[in-house]
Amino acid sequence: MTTYSHILQAYQRIEGQAIRTPLLESTAINQRLGGRVLFKVEALQRTGSFKFRGAYNKISQLAQQGIKGVVAYSSGNHAQGVALVAALFDMHAVIIMPADSPAIKINNTRALGGEVVLYDRYTQSREELGAALAQERNLALVKPYDDPDIIAGQGTVGLEAAQQLQILGLTPGQMIAPCGGGGLISGCSIAIHQSFPDTHIWLAEPEHYDDAARSLQAKRRLANNTSHTSICDAIVTPTTGELTFPIIEQHVRGGVSVSESYVLDAMAVCMQELKVVIEPGGSVGLAALLAGLLPCQDKTTLVILSGGNADPQVLARALSQ
Amino acid sequence: MTTYSHILQAYQRIEGQAIRTPLLESTAINQRLGGRVLFKVEALQRTGSFKFRGAYNKISQLAQQGIKGVVAYSSGNHAQGVALVAALFDMHAVIIMPADSPAIKINNTRALGGEVVLYDRYTQSREELGAALAQERNLALVKPYDDPDIIAGQGTVGLEAAQQLQILGLTPGQMIAPCGGGGLISGCSIAIHQSFPDTHIWLAEPEHYDDAARSLQAKRRLANNTSHTSICDAIVTPTTGELTFPIIEQHVRGGVSVSESYVLDAMAVCMQELKVVIEPGGSVGLAALLAGLLPCQDKTTLVILSGGNADPQVLARALSQ
Repeated sequence: MTTYSHILQAYQRIEGQAIRTPLLESTAINQRLGGRVLFKVEALQRTGSFKFRGAYNKISQLAQQGIKGVVAYSSGNHAQGVALVAALFDMHAVIIMPADSPAIKINNTRALGGEVVLYDRYTQSREELGAALAQERNLALVKPYDDPDIIAGQGTVGLEAAQQLQILGLTPGQMIAPCGGGGLISGCSIAIHQSFPDTHIWLAEPEHYDDAARSLQAKRRLANNTSHTSICDAIVTPTTGELTFPIIEQHVRGGVSVSESYVLDAMAVCMQELKVVIEPGGSVGLAALLAGLLPCQDKTTLVILSGGNADPQVLARALSQ
Repeated sequence: MTTYSHILQAYQRIEGQAIRTPLLESTAINQRLGGRVLFKVEALQRTGSFKFRGAYNKISQLAQQGIKGVVAYSSGNHAQGVALVAALFDMHAVIIMPADSPAIKINNTRALGGEVVLYDRYTQSREELGAALAQERNLALVKPYDDPDIIAGQGTVGLEAAQQLQILGLTPGQMIAPCGGGGLISGCSIAIHQSFPDTHIWLAEPEHYDDAARSLQAKRRLANNTSHTSICDAIVTPTTGELTFPIIEQHVRGGVSVSESYVLDAMAVCMQELKVVIEPGGSVGLAALLAGLLPCQDKTTLVILSGGNADPQVLARALSQ
């Protein structure tokens, strides 16, 4: 299982390559929610999401082993992270993406040098496609979350946030982060609990995709009915990972799920108050606070805003609410 | 005249209070412009613009002198900076703002505890109003740019950017920053030339408000015809300052002015590629690059994105271009 020392090792690998993203705060948001809320803004990471961190931690090690090419399946953020890191190490990257990914994610992945293969996320299995391509073309598979090196890389978000909170002299009473496959929240939970063992950790999911919250209650991994559409493409996954779920069980108190209108509201608040563009799936933590699902009064809350790759049409919808 | 040591002193005062804003870069923007472009993003500063820095440097010293209240005139960003800093020092702040300021700026100034007095920017003189209120109510006037402490505070943007460039091992061949009254660019010029004496510095202005560029050519301060409307409210000033212009003359090579459509394009690029919300006046430097007014091929360019307080309607216009 991934440990804090894996996260420290990952941090040494990515330092100087990944951006140390800022921890932002807004007087207006604090006033609205009645407590101090600190935002770790991974939309400002290279390729626009935290995924660069895990990809760098994994692929830098594959490069040392002499691997020449990688394959990844992704709704778009992992795709861009893998494509850029592969390019940094002069590796070829094949990326399997849903045909209905935001255009910005597909275009950016190609612009970063990735070879994009599209599939239908409602009828085809990306895991099977990935395994087949890996074998056919002799590529190393870079999974989006169920890999100890990926989890450790994403955990550096929590490590940095803990350092930044300590500089401010703050102890977070609670933390909330988006959960799709669970790579981000599992890694961050380990890092945050290392520095702040008493922080209550919560996960946020979009409505219809609340498998992690239900799995925590059932004490076993449950799946989503993936026939629902969702604007939160970044975290629409069938289920949490085999490796991530046990970590989530150990660290996370429970999950909340948010409707589309609170997601759009959260995106608008991010643009207006924090001056950052957050994609729907990246904003579910703040959406949960705005919906009153996690009271913030008289405590310090850490919110992970995980990515910012939103199409302009969705941003315009959020602004016109 | 403001010197580098004034900027260092200002930096010691604001450290831990102002956010060390990130220096961001985008592969897509670099590809589009043909060189490396680094963005110093002051939209992520407290109150959404660099103005917090100068206000803090000035008001922290007034507080030490026992002053109990301040008055400021501002299109909105200086207003918010002064209102927040005054509140931090338990001072009353009266802010004189144009009646046509973006609603977000007026509302935020009030939310920060500022007493807002509106005036008509096309018929009334804010300088006269400010002087009258200062005398009547025994308040210290905090000018928006023509004050050595304000210039030194804004210069910390350049100081930080120079540090961040040095960490990356980069020497900027050129820098471009917005210019209204000239507080930001004059302070930043001193700081950048201290670390990088050969950097070519340029200023950017909106069309119809290119007084600084014309003044540089004429070697004396010229004024704008302020009857034109502009979406770049943050930098719509009648002329540069008495104190700022000599510094600009010493350090800045010239100015470029940009049309509204390039400003909107720059705002869209900031949202899509950098994931940050930049207001019209804050984006004129990037707008100039997109318009081809300052070639970036095969060199490193530093761009100051000075603020992010844009109304949602303007952001929506930028996104729908």
